[in-house]
Amino acid sequence: MTWRRFSTFVQWIVLGACVGVLCGGASALFLHLLEKASEVRTGHEIVVYTLPLAGLIIGWVYERFGKPIKAGSNLIIDTIHDGGPEIPLRMAPMVLIGTVLPHLFGGSAGREGTAVQMGASLADALAYRLGLTQEVRKQLLAAGVAGGFGSVFGTPIAGTVFGLEFITLGRIEYNALVPALVASVVGDMTTRWLGIGHTHYPAPPHVPLSSLLLLKWLLFAVAIAASTTIFIELTHFIKRQMEKRIPRLPFRMMLGGVVVVAMWQLIGMSDYLGLGVPMIVRSFEDPELPVYAFAAKLLFTAVTLGAGFLGGEVTPLFFVGAALGNALSGPLGLPLPLCAGVGLAAMFASASNTPLALSMMAMELLGANVFPHVAVVCVLSYLLAGHRSIYPAQRLWQRKD
Amino acid sequence: MTWRRFSTFVQWIVLGACVGVLCGGASALFLHLLEKASEVRTGHEIVVYTLPLAGLIIGWVYERFGKPIKAGSNLIIDTIHDGGPEIPLRMAPMVLIGTVLPHLFGGSAGREGTAVQMGASLADALAYRLGLTQEVRKQLLAAGVAGGFGSVFGTPIAGTVFGLEFITLGRIEYNALVPALVASVVGDMTTRWLGIGHTHYPAPPHVPLSSLLLLKWLLFAVAIAASTTIFIELTHFIKRQMEKRIPRLPFRMMLGGVVVVAMWQLIGMSDYLGLGVPMIVRSFEDPELPVYAFAAKLLFTAVTLGAGFLGGEVTPLFFVGAALGNALSGPLGLPLPLCAGVGLAAMFASASNTPLALSMMAMELLGANVFPHVAVVCVLSYLLAGHRSIYPAQRLWQRKD
Repeated sequence: MTWRRFSTFVQWIVLGACVGVLCGGASALFLHLLEKASEVRTGHEIVVYTLPLAGLIIGWVYERFGKPIKAGSNLIIDTIHDGGPEIPLRMAPMVLIGTVLPHLFGGSAGREGTAVQMGASLADALAYRLGLTQEVRKQLLAAGVAGGFGSVFGTPIAGTVFGLEFITLGRIEYNALVPALVASVVGDMTTRWLGIGHTHYPAPPHVPLSSLLLLKWLLFAVAIAASTTIFIELTHFIKRQMEKRIPRLPFRMMLGGVVVVAMWQLIGMSDYLGLGVPMIVRSFEDPELPVYAFAAKLLFTAVTLGAGFLGGEVTPLFFVGAALGNALSGPLGLPLPLCAGVGLAAMFASASNTPLALSMMAMELLGANVFPHVAVVCVLSYLLAGHRSIYPAQRLWQRKD
Repeated sequence: MTWRRFSTFVQWIVLGACVGVLCGGASALFLHLLEKASEVRTGHEIVVYTLPLAGLIIGWVYERFGKPIKAGSNLIIDTIHDGGPEIPLRMAPMVLIGTVLPHLFGGSAGREGTAVQMGASLADALAYRLGLTQEVRKQLLAAGVAGGFGSVFGTPIAGTVFGLEFITLGRIEYNALVPALVASVVGDMTTRWLGIGHTHYPAPPHVPLSSLLLLKWLLFAVAIAASTTIFIELTHFIKRQMEKRIPRLPFRMMLGGVVVVAMWQLIGMSDYLGLGVPMIVRSFEDPELPVYAFAAKLLFTAVTLGAGFLGGEVTPLFFVGAALGNALSGPLGLPLPLCAGVGLAAMFASASNTPLALSMMAMELLGANVFPHVAVVCVLSYLLAGHRSIYPAQRLWQRKD
């Protein structure tokens, strides 16, 4: 072993562990606050009416102080590819508060965007304080992404692969493999050590593959890819239309809040507000789940995110995918928890072009029986969803045709 | 969805399925013959004495008819990267017979080289008969590798990732993702449908990660990387020395056979001949396994492969890794099946630079509890083993420092 490789290795381990502790601590705080916010909201549903006001305030704060960070996860992707100025450290607290508040008031958004942005901005702060080279800095940014993702979901290996997979469409590079792995594993351990638990989903039964089942999974993947396409196009459409008509962010977010409140009143239940974890768990077990549940959650999320609220897409898309799987399990004659589990992972895999990370995530969340089904559906729906992505900054390395 | 993407997709599915059926059929025949060969050998151990004679004959046949295919798996890697003339279809039967015979007579070699070479040569025959473009042809070659690997071990997702991961060090590209997945899944189904079963290994218990455990895994990875380094260097050393002193292959293989027979007599047991599957299973369960078992198998395999026998490295390296894990489980105070399982996967991961494929393989063979431990050790030992590889043709994309 050369001295150069030894010192790089030690550096990766030490820096990766530091990033992991930072990410894990931030995720723990974030998850704790999210849980409190959800508790308050489910206890006092009246607060949902103030979502438009919350949008107005958050929008104003972001407009005033958030210019350099408004690209969110796309800023992280661009910086990992091209370098560029330090990612402002204030991204971490801003995105934290900017995500917890809408959840408190019922917006339908996720967590991974927040975790990834907190992780990356903390990692970049570390890299700049230590005066690291651009190359190592980019590796630490990927480690921050991995650490944020792995710790917020309790899936360290999926976090590692996500950190490497999400920046480019059609390729995984191993240059940040070791720091990403260390950050994700240490981050997950830190979050758990701080007493944060993660949702347990029911484990699907073992089902052997057959030709007929492969055909069913192909149909399933078509449905997932179609939903992904609708979700991405709809969110972009709402965003573009609103930006054209309402130039100022606070008013866009206020209007988004008004629409979410109106939809909430119209549908007459609170199941589609916030992360929607209880509904995800129900999708695994309840054959009576409304068939339209996936479409409703898709709409709530597209409006929330299209209006400019922060958070991310993972958990709402877990909901959409699991509910869609629930709806398809009857017609396809497949076990409910298997369809829900496969749908959960494949929806985000195709929306973010990360089929390998999400296959691993499904395995970490749901056990080994979800393999190989989830990998088959993730890859097929990834391909069928085309070159669109919830992260427009993703570089296209390999066309899908 | 564009017409172009639709037609590519259909083409990938159909061609991938054809490659899968071919690979799966070839693997089934191969596994059936291997089982018969092992049965005959364990029933009549006297045949081991004829290993030198078998080496002489196989060597002569290869010298006479095998020139264009003697690069084996490296020829596949080169062709996937650079194109080049059609891989001769006779590679499939030649490598099949050339692997089964040494197993019959007790040589210590594996199976994946054979499966991969059969799969790729069948895929290439298909590509040439159909007059496909070079681009699609290369994708089908990767699909053949995936189909061979996935079907011979019964691990379709690991097969898929292996087909993409093993050609380049430090990168996975998705250009052949869909055909590789289809070929590997269909290949595995075909092999099972033909009545072939795979070895069941005991599932490790669930063990949560901790800082102390991470430190132990780091030591574990150092031991794995050291063994990998010794294995690769020793095999290359034996090969180089023999090629320098004995120009003709049949005599090299004869001498290799003599040495294996001598070692077999010296050690006084047959545990280190052939694939060694019973010893792999024992590594998961028997705390009394000899501490030197991993070193003995390493030596038997280095001599067998260094002398020019065919087959591959996976199963013997599974043996080496599992036995090493067995030996380390006491000193490290870790559960036996977990150490054996992690060692099994990490040894080949670091020897072939395929940490992701082998992490998935461990999960497909041993269940979800082996995660995240196996991924941690695969990545660390992959990194620590440096830039050497059992496949010298592997392109170096990303240095490990």
